[in-house]
Amino acid sequence: MPDAKTRVLILGGGFGGVYTAMHLERLLGRRGLQHCEIALVNRDNYLVFQPMLPEVISGAINTLHVICPIRRLAPRTHVYTREIEQVDLQNKTVRLAPGSRPKPLALNFDHLVLALGNVLDDSKVPGMREHALPFKYLGDGLLLRNHLVHVLEEADTETDPIERRRLLTFVVAGGGFSGVECAAELNDFVRGAVKVYRRLRPDELRVVLLQSGERILPEIDEGLARFAHRILQRRGVEIRLQTRLQAVTAEAALVADKSGGGPESIATRTTVTTVPTRPHPLIAGLPCEQERGRVRVDGSLRVLGWSGLWAVGDCAAVPQPDGITSPPTAQHAVRQARLCAANIAASLADRPPQTFAFTGLGKLGSLGRRSAVAEVMGLKISGLPAWVLWRAIYLSKFPGFDRKLRILADWIWDMLLPRDVTQIRLRDGQAVRQEHFEPGQVVFDQGDFGDKLYVVVRGEAEVTDNGAVLRTLGAGDVFGEIALIADTPRTACVRALTALDLVAVPRRAFGQLVTHLPGVRESMESIMRRHLGSETAEREVVSPRVWTEVNQVHEGR
Amino acid sequence: MPDAKTRVLILGGGFGGVYTAMHLERLLGRRGLQHCEIALVNRDNYLVFQPMLPEVISGAINTLHVICPIRRLAPRTHVYTREIEQVDLQNKTVRLAPGSRPKPLALNFDHLVLALGNVLDDSKVPGMREHALPFKYLGDGLLLRNHLVHVLEEADTETDPIERRRLLTFVVAGGGFSGVECAAELNDFVRGAVKVYRRLRPDELRVVLLQSGERILPEIDEGLARFAHRILQRRGVEIRLQTRLQAVTAEAALVADKSGGGPESIATRTTVTTVPTRPHPLIAGLPCEQERGRVRVDGSLRVLGWSGLWAVGDCAAVPQPDGITSPPTAQHAVRQARLCAANIAASLADRPPQTFAFTGLGKLGSLGRRSAVAEVMGLKISGLPAWVLWRAIYLSKFPGFDRKLRILADWIWDMLLPRDVTQIRLRDGQAVRQEHFEPGQVVFDQGDFGDKLYVVVRGEAEVTDNGAVLRTLGAGDVFGEIALIADTPRTACVRALTALDLVAVPRRAFGQLVTHLPGVRESMESIMRRHLGSETAEREVVSPRVWTEVNQVHEGR
Repeated sequence: MPDAKTRVLILGGGFGGVYTAMHLERLLGRRGLQHCEIALVNRDNYLVFQPMLPEVISGAINTLHVICPIRRLAPRTHVYTREIEQVDLQNKTVRLAPGSRPKPLALNFDHLVLALGNVLDDSKVPGMREHALPFKYLGDGLLLRNHLVHVLEEADTETDPIERRRLLTFVVAGGGFSGVECAAELNDFVRGAVKVYRRLRPDELRVVLLQSGERILPEIDEGLARFAHRILQRRGVEIRLQTRLQAVTAEAALVADKSGGGPESIATRTTVTTVPTRPHPLIAGLPCEQERGRVRVDGSLRVLGWSGLWAVGDCAAVPQPDGITSPPTAQHAVRQARLCAANIAASLADRPPQTFAFTGLGKLGSLGRRSAVAEVMGLKISGLPAWVLWRAIYLSKFPGFDRKLRILADWIWDMLLPRDVTQIRLRDGQAVRQEHFEPGQVVFDQGDFGDKLYVVVRGEAEVTDNGAVLRTLGAGDVFGEIALIADTPRTACVRALTALDLVAVPRRAFGQLVTHLPGVRESMESIMRRHLGSETAEREVVSPRVWTEVNQVHEGR
Repeated sequence: MPDAKTRVLILGGGFGGVYTAMHLERLLGRRGLQHCEIALVNRDNYLVFQPMLPEVISGAINTLHVICPIRRLAPRTHVYTREIEQVDLQNKTVRLAPGSRPKPLALNFDHLVLALGNVLDDSKVPGMREHALPFKYLGDGLLLRNHLVHVLEEADTETDPIERRRLLTFVVAGGGFSGVECAAELNDFVRGAVKVYRRLRPDELRVVLLQSGERILPEIDEGLARFAHRILQRRGVEIRLQTRLQAVTAEAALVADKSGGGPESIATRTTVTTVPTRPHPLIAGLPCEQERGRVRVDGSLRVLGWSGLWAVGDCAAVPQPDGITSPPTAQHAVRQARLCAANIAASLADRPPQTFAFTGLGKLGSLGRRSAVAEVMGLKISGLPAWVLWRAIYLSKFPGFDRKLRILADWIWDMLLPRDVTQIRLRDGQAVRQEHFEPGQVVFDQGDFGDKLYVVVRGEAEVTDNGAVLRTLGAGDVFGEIALIADTPRTACVRALTALDLVAVPRRAFGQLVTHLPGVRESMESIMRRHLGSETAEREVVSPRVWTEVNQVHEGR
């Protein structure tokens, strides 16, 4: 009778979720697991060891070595690598997105552990979703590294000095631990990589760190933060305090100084964001008490008002004995997970739960190349000793002996051998996506190569021909379609008059859509006829043959 | 006067292209390079060491270690990581695709070396482009590895025995060196990885190798091929000789036996192809003599009829002293590159060119786990000695000392530590793409989860409701849109009547298109009104609010 088993379902595969499963397996033992089934749902089949993620950027650690297969860590837990569609607390059911077959999958539970973490909020700053590179997940680290190589490649062959400068400027937003570590590793990487490019010089590189507060690393002692500030500056990072990211475009980061003064535009093709975060969307929709987007739990990690519902990690607001709410760090998540497992086991055995008693051991932040800052049990350490401590502590915390060995080997190789500058292309750039422009920015210019069609979502733009305004564009207007078909350079210039959001349809996707989606061809043809004047339109556009050819030519790889 | 320099332009970054640049740098020396400029164009900034690519599948070698940055190998060559748009032999110009700025880039040349290799031809077998996994480039290796982990994950949570069997079946098409090596590594990987999955057993795995000829490895001695055949069979690979891949769908590989008999359908979600190849599309368009898609050159690698034009590697038909045309292997490409560099240097110094005199040293094929076959200078070796030879030869051929060390370390770790089963998601599955179905195949069934809309490109399908035929669909028809909007399961079943090609538009892409692309909403609404009957349509569909909401809901990550 497998249905008589008690089901513990864990949502999320970060430190909170995976460590809950690990401890639960250990506490219940082989005997306990005959009566209890543990399942865990996560988008990926691995745990990311977050503290080492920044080292993926510089390549000091191999990408695959900062992650750990969840099945290895919790071998007796059922792992579902799916997206979660819906959490139904009333009926004690979680619905997962379909996998290879389009059949819905519903999991029932007796105990549910929420360990979903938080997500980056890209909705507050215009253009962030479209043009900024987030830095939170493993995929982000990979994409960022490839992007860095890509802009160096481009800069190496670029002849225009303004574009060259733009390609060689890097902006990181967020001066907390993750922003500082990201900026430090990014800086190390580009300054090392630039040496293999024949036409680039290290002094052309510019790395800017934006921090809205009065100092970097507000989480740590002021003296240590000052130390970190000096180290980063000496290594070439330009630190802008009291400065906030206002908007991002494909060509610039717009920043505003708190001391007043209008927004400044930093020309760059690389804006990395580590802030702000917001609660996981599934958490926001749950009918339970929340505190700034985190689920409120009592000292034993039970969600108020629901039996059998627990929350740990960054998505939980856990009260500490010192009166404050647990900060969102790995060390807290891991201890909460251990307690959560113990309390679930206690509840299964009808024993009373324990209370969360941890208040933090210390703080560690890496500054790249043999330097770090640490505040451990009252001691403040900086420089090389802190860096050695950083590596020793995190290596010892890394789950699994084989991983420890691999990371150690990576670190040794990294000291001995040159770093890589290979770029693996992960996106083909042929998807329909949104783009953001700030007032005055040029969408495209006369003579440009044309490989996209645009539709205005929000805002206004003007079309000019050698300075003479031809017309203005507003929401719903389509432009840029002629160059797609005739394979000629852009015949006019389009410039944003206000903040402007566009949907860009690249050539190949356009060919597919126009051929296959009903209604598109007809309305595109009427738009073109209007833009081109009747004769040309008749000749170039209306023939269905042209559409088919466009499609065939661009369907090949 | 930089424009007085002689320009040597190399197209392609495989063995042929990169080794030409390397040898040319060495031959010309610092002095020669003051009068001569070498440039190389390749899509990626690295050379892939093809012979080791199969080991990326099993994870024996780390992905990044089978590649080598071109700039490190040829430090004095200008590298352009761009796609090539056009080769103009008459005007001695090559046009590159635009990079970060939409400006065209044209390169002039005095000497042009064609080293573009060949590409996989996915146009001959229906469904190959849409559903087969190619195995030729580095990205293919990565995708394949991730796909293998993905299907194991799916199988582990799948309750339907038919689907489970389908997920655990793997088909590799092509019994030459690359197909055999790919099948061997794939087989090793899945049989090792299956151990960490709680609900999977090794005997459920099925790996099938398809070979159209009478034996595998036609390139090598028959005795060795028989040895390879036995080893693969003993390790669980099912070898189907005289069998050809006929069509691929998302759910099956259709194969036909040469001995007659109708096509057989092997239920699988993994069909890997290593055959057939076709000439690079840029080569096909060039106005020069060709021999089965390869550019015809004379013994000194000059393209007939053009001065200053050279060709090496898989895209060149090079006559050998033994009367045959050079086979497309790395050892030949490397020697051709050396000769090509020497002959260009000779031509710059007005010396006569040399003639290609190499006829091949031998053949090596890895069979995975400590076995291989080798035919070297008349000797036939198999098993462990051949495997040691294989590793020793290729390691010694790998360019760069640091790479050799890294690969050696990978091999040692691989013997000592467990292999990884992590899956990095590289595609988000939200792009508009084409799908292929064979007659009788179900596109979707009643009760399925609906997250895509379909448009018929070619072929016919029927819509049924509990067995009763409602209507038939043909080219241009749209279906499946209702489940997208109402978030209800599919209300009817759609089945292919003939071979059927569809364009599938996933939910998020659909939301964007319908909101932003002119004409789409109107025609979708009229289609729905027809499908649903007037009342429902009015209520559910026509309100623009609904579209906007669909879009907003699915725009979030």
